[in-house]
Amino acid sequence: MAQNPQTAEPSRPGEFDLIADYFAPLASRPGAFGLLDDAACLPARPGTDVVVTKDSLAANVHFLATDPPDLIARKALRVNLSDLAAKGAEPFAYFLSLALPPDWTEAWIADFTRGLREDQEMYGIDLYGGDTLKSPGGLVVSITAVGHLPTGTMVTRLGGRSDDLLFVTGTIGDAALGLKVHTGDPKVAEWHLAASQQAELRDRYLLPRPRVALCEAVRAHASAAMDVSDGLLGDLGKLCRASGLGAVLQSDRVPFSAPVASAIESGGAALDLALDGGDDYEVLLAIPPGRQADFEADAAKVGISTTRIGSLTKFAPGVSVIDAGGETVPMRSRSFEHF
Amino acid sequence: MAQNPQTAEPSRPGEFDLIADYFAPLASRPGAFGLLDDAACLPARPGTDVVVTKDSLAANVHFLATDPPDLIARKALRVNLSDLAAKGAEPFAYFLSLALPPDWTEAWIADFTRGLREDQEMYGIDLYGGDTLKSPGGLVVSITAVGHLPTGTMVTRLGGRSDDLLFVTGTIGDAALGLKVHTGDPKVAEWHLAASQQAELRDRYLLPRPRVALCEAVRAHASAAMDVSDGLLGDLGKLCRASGLGAVLQSDRVPFSAPVASAIESGGAALDLALDGGDDYEVLLAIPPGRQADFEADAAKVGISTTRIGSLTKFAPGVSVIDAGGETVPMRSRSFEHF
Repeated sequence: MAQNPQTAEPSRPGEFDLIADYFAPLASRPGAFGLLDDAACLPARPGTDVVVTKDSLAANVHFLATDPPDLIARKALRVNLSDLAAKGAEPFAYFLSLALPPDWTEAWIADFTRGLREDQEMYGIDLYGGDTLKSPGGLVVSITAVGHLPTGTMVTRLGGRSDDLLFVTGTIGDAALGLKVHTGDPKVAEWHLAASQQAELRDRYLLPRPRVALCEAVRAHASAAMDVSDGLLGDLGKLCRASGLGAVLQSDRVPFSAPVASAIESGGAALDLALDGGDDYEVLLAIPPGRQADFEADAAKVGISTTRIGSLTKFAPGVSVIDAGGETVPMRSRSFEHF
Repeated sequence: MAQNPQTAEPSRPGEFDLIADYFAPLASRPGAFGLLDDAACLPARPGTDVVVTKDSLAANVHFLATDPPDLIARKALRVNLSDLAAKGAEPFAYFLSLALPPDWTEAWIADFTRGLREDQEMYGIDLYGGDTLKSPGGLVVSITAVGHLPTGTMVTRLGGRSDDLLFVTGTIGDAALGLKVHTGDPKVAEWHLAASQQAELRDRYLLPRPRVALCEAVRAHASAAMDVSDGLLGDLGKLCRASGLGAVLQSDRVPFSAPVASAIESGGAALDLALDGGDDYEVLLAIPPGRQADFEADAAKVGISTTRIGSLTKFAPGVSVIDAGGETVPMRSRSFEHF
């Protein structure tokens, strides 16, 4: 659709220069054609399947519009890499649609693309295409990430079996509490955390750490897996529904970082928030009992901690939370809705 | 990020029901896992390359927020199919990120997904994944479309050769003039068009007709091709830059529909608008002179009209427009900027 010429905004580059100066340098693979084309050709890899995920983030829904642009870029990329990792896929390509608000600046783009470059190098991925567009209502970052894996080895949410053991990577709840720190929520005062602990939680919210290194172990051992992005309880409920099973979650086994454990001890509903809040970007896996030792060993080899937190049951549907004594813990069990 | 529970909006389905009721029925292929997973597995097709394009549309930039939801859906899909067709790729899959404004309704979603279904059936494609999210600032529809073609046969913008003949499909300018009709622009009165002609133009704006049937002929004959989405002159300039060539465009040869031809005759800057306006979604091709007859025959076989409008030249860069007498026509030559 027709737009006003850029002459009204002489200090900003036009679309062509923006792509040439900031995005084309991120797209150096042959199939990306230096972003001179409007489509990309993904290299055929015999013996592999292509796994695709597409997750978008909107300002003031998934991040604050005022967050550092490089962190917005890296978060948008990483939430997609997290999805691929949980399927056992190694990422290699991504596409970006960047819907820019009217007040975008070249400095913002420079920071945003710097963030993309840092993560491209960290994860060995390349930009293959996408578009930039005007978004009168605010920033929306849409990423499509592409990975590959040996044919027929993708791990879904649907394959869980009764008595599979439930494992989760890393620690749970840091980002949900970190968001409260980031937005200056008064609830944070009730947790009596040191400033350094608050900063640690906030960092976990701002910059997810997708478990890309786990993808081989996921493929080798998991009957079902997904990333934990909308809260452990809600996401476990989704895995149960997709697999046609129920689950028992042992609340005393859920791995918490020191700051989250402190916050839970101090009360203030931090346990609910930790189990129900989003943005963990850890991996939840269903592991057949006979594979537990091998899975734990393979995860440890790539430096990723894993914790057994419960098991799948044939008593579908639903997730029961029990404490150390086996008593049922009443929980608000729901997954965050993104609209 | 945490959202208010849906209890504040009791009349609208939650994300889970929305996916189950409206989107999952569009995702019936095995690799889409009924949208129960957060990633899709694209079937491996030996001997083929995967071609991917990603184009997003924002309300009040690429369409009006008040446009019929089924037409918004179909336009969003079709602009991506148009990109694939111009590369010679047959579409088979798409992913959708739907960023919904706060006032979305279930009826809107029902109409939107009905539009998707109609076009899925028309073009033989399936939904494989994506996400829905809240967009405080307004609707953004982001589509990633995936096609395939025999390995190594993708046609890019980069392969044009000096003396290649330039062809374009269909007619040019209908949508650019149609947008003026759609928005009630006073300029329309200067064109003295019948109501039926205005409606014809408006329809071309609202619902592109991607040239999917041409993809085999594109692969067989074109040394370079692209879809015309941002205006013929500007897009030809992009093809020239990508191929490192210049072009001569014969303005008297550009194919216009009867309403556009009438509007041009009546003055009112309609020629500039037709050559420079966006949303044509026709295909621009560079055809080696020796292949002209075969290309025209193959296009005619699939019912697509093609017109020779000029040629590529080694006098890079830039596009010269000449009239029937060979005189240079001064043009505002630029491509529309989407931000």
